[in-house]
Amino acid sequence: MSGILIKNVNILTMNEEKTIIPKGVVAISGNIILEVGDSTLEEKYKDFITIDGEDGILMPGMVNCHTHAAMVPFRSLADDCGDRLRKYLFPLEQKLVDRELVAIGAKYALCEMLLGGVTTFCDMYYFEDEVAKVSKKMGVRAVLGETVVNFPAPDSKKPYGGLCYGEEFIKSWMGDDLITPAIAPHAPYSNDEISLKKAHKLSKKYNIPMIMHVAEMDFEYLYYKEQYSLSPVKYLNSLGILDENFIGAHMILLDEGDLDILQSNGVGVSHNMGANSKGAKGVAPVLEMYKRGMKIGLGTDGPMSGNTLDIITQMALVGKVHKLYNKDRTILPAHEIVEMATIGGARALNLGEKIGSIEVGKKADLVLIETTSVNMQPIYDYYSTIVYSANPSNVHTVIVDGKILVRDKQLIGIDFLNVKKELLNLRDKVETIAKEM
Amino acid sequence: MSGILIKNVNILTMNEEKTIIPKGVVAISGNIILEVGDSTLEEKYKDFITIDGEDGILMPGMVNCHTHAAMVPFRSLADDCGDRLRKYLFPLEQKLVDRELVAIGAKYALCEMLLGGVTTFCDMYYFEDEVAKVSKKMGVRAVLGETVVNFPAPDSKKPYGGLCYGEEFIKSWMGDDLITPAIAPHAPYSNDEISLKKAHKLSKKYNIPMIMHVAEMDFEYLYYKEQYSLSPVKYLNSLGILDENFIGAHMILLDEGDLDILQSNGVGVSHNMGANSKGAKGVAPVLEMYKRGMKIGLGTDGPMSGNTLDIITQMALVGKVHKLYNKDRTILPAHEIVEMATIGGARALNLGEKIGSIEVGKKADLVLIETTSVNMQPIYDYYSTIVYSANPSNVHTVIVDGKILVRDKQLIGIDFLNVKKELLNLRDKVETIAKEM
Repeated sequence: MSGILIKNVNILTMNEEKTIIPKGVVAISGNIILEVGDSTLEEKYKDFITIDGEDGILMPGMVNCHTHAAMVPFRSLADDCGDRLRKYLFPLEQKLVDRELVAIGAKYALCEMLLGGVTTFCDMYYFEDEVAKVSKKMGVRAVLGETVVNFPAPDSKKPYGGLCYGEEFIKSWMGDDLITPAIAPHAPYSNDEISLKKAHKLSKKYNIPMIMHVAEMDFEYLYYKEQYSLSPVKYLNSLGILDENFIGAHMILLDEGDLDILQSNGVGVSHNMGANSKGAKGVAPVLEMYKRGMKIGLGTDGPMSGNTLDIITQMALVGKVHKLYNKDRTILPAHEIVEMATIGGARALNLGEKIGSIEVGKKADLVLIETTSVNMQPIYDYYSTIVYSANPSNVHTVIVDGKILVRDKQLIGIDFLNVKKELLNLRDKVETIAKEM
Repeated sequence: MSGILIKNVNILTMNEEKTIIPKGVVAISGNIILEVGDSTLEEKYKDFITIDGEDGILMPGMVNCHTHAAMVPFRSLADDCGDRLRKYLFPLEQKLVDRELVAIGAKYALCEMLLGGVTTFCDMYYFEDEVAKVSKKMGVRAVLGETVVNFPAPDSKKPYGGLCYGEEFIKSWMGDDLITPAIAPHAPYSNDEISLKKAHKLSKKYNIPMIMHVAEMDFEYLYYKEQYSLSPVKYLNSLGILDENFIGAHMILLDEGDLDILQSNGVGVSHNMGANSKGAKGVAPVLEMYKRGMKIGLGTDGPMSGNTLDIITQMALVGKVHKLYNKDRTILPAHEIVEMATIGGARALNLGEKIGSIEVGKKADLVLIETTSVNMQPIYDYYSTIVYSANPSNVHTVIVDGKILVRDKQLIGIDFLNVKKELLNLRDKVETIAKEM
């Protein structure tokens, strides 16, 4: 039998007991984790291709539960402006977003995610078939939802064209091992009841995720209070569309009743602290969600909102902001944050049976964090080191679905200089148009 | 004439007008910035040693306004514990901190700061003469204050021994071009009125900085309210010790009256968001301070509190937390945060005439940030890219006092592997003792 053996690593399994195996070994066969244990296993797998982890930390591949990867061409534009969504984002998208931009942006974003240790991402945007093609080609696991909005969009001249586009997309990619197609009504306020119900019908029909921005905006919250005397979550619940397949991004403006609904309906949550803080949106009640055993993962949001696409950068921020807001340094200890970044995210995307932990039989999605860089020592607690000290540059090796995609901090089999060249051509176009705005 | 020419860089001068020079050039002679301008200057300095910045960002060396560098051996220990200061920190220090630990810890910390683009740091701890020797040898600019506390300390069997130790230290290092000696009463609550006044007398006598933790702790705030009906700042002011030489770290629990005092007395402030958030301390009123034109820099605090020692990591957090607290994404735009990280910090340490901006006649303390890594593109705004996208691994070249100390992300002339080996020996000692606690 052949395979890959990773040795000399300190394994954060992220299994139910959060077992840590110092100086451990992981054997991979094909795309599956075959065995996990201590160094005595080395002999058994001596014919496998061996990766010496050099006393680094081996953790499950990180899950980015919410992004718009293809928006990389807009990163660092108008960062500190008010109401950027409606002033810059929507108009820029109308003028610039096409099939080509999505393919180029997604390719660049995937390079960034891989180099930062993200092995699965959940995306919503236009032309998700392009994102799917790129992800499949690059070997990255993804949940991809075509956006549905109540105005003409880059992928459709008619409002709600995403529903039709989305169904075609779902049909093409159903059953793929790496890509999970989904449907993504943009937000309650950018859809009507009919489109939301239609989207949910697709989600039911194909048993695929439905992704949506929920309870993120003050104006959204006020609108549903005024129009329906309901919170956004209760409004969505009244339509009967909240279920296990629902993945809500942001989920900031929630009350106890909303939490009850989300919990009992088994809704998954993407907590996007970087974007929510930079955008001054608010702090999602993640502590309460965690206590309720809800499915919570971490997300970066799009690179125009959260700028970076790795999950390591999110982790420190998640810990620090919640401690600050709760005036308690002991809450959300580092291991709970690493949990959200891995198995929590996997559960939020309903992939918890397949990925998110280093356990026998799961897909081999693994990240090796080196501990030789100056910021990484000394180590008394691996979780603390990852959450409070690491940055994405400490990601050394990344394996997705059994394939080595990053080794020694370099992408394998991807011509990154060419990907960057394509992005920079787009940048100049974006700048020309943004200057006229 | 000989010197160094840095070309092909986008210069954030951080001068009064915040002039940006695209594709600019900086000429250095000895330890001084000789000329700053556009690429037409290249011909004039063609005999200089040339550094091609490859379209990177050249910014002033960053200033870490508050740390306890030598505490690196304790990093990642007991991170999420309550009242860690009194439960772990003080007892560990009593048992472990000696001259050797301080020298080893400081050496390691300086490697980290240099690799992260910090060219000046302000430190308070025990055995600061060891920190001074290490800093001088490694060529890093520093303001170093011997700690004064009301209990037996590692450097003195008697309470307040730091006063005597500190004066000797000040006398030895007065007038050094790179090292500014200082005196550092730990906090109001860990000193009495007499010691605070004595420390201030030293500060006056030698015209050197006085560094102190102020208005950081809830118990501190309550104590002065109960005992004196005063805020900590008003208490210190009543002793007559707040002046231009005073550098206050944290400064969280302030009212309008405190701000009036700090402003009119010309006090410098170190804003330490990483440590303040992780420790659930609170958010310093930095917006109000900035509006008042106060001298505000950024600090990491010690590596047991803030974990990392670079300033880039602080910047995103500063922006995001203040936006969140003020529910306004437009406040503290990226250029103001870069200002605090450079010239603001220099001003807080009373070094604003000497460092903090890229201007003719200033000391050549410079940092080149590469823009080739995946997280750094595209760029529409250099400040945004530094604040929201960069991490310390993007620091490419660091020059302090005209000397190249980091090139191509590697320390020059420092055997880092040996420095790390010394640190890891200490780590094992720390773990043994911590396990008994």
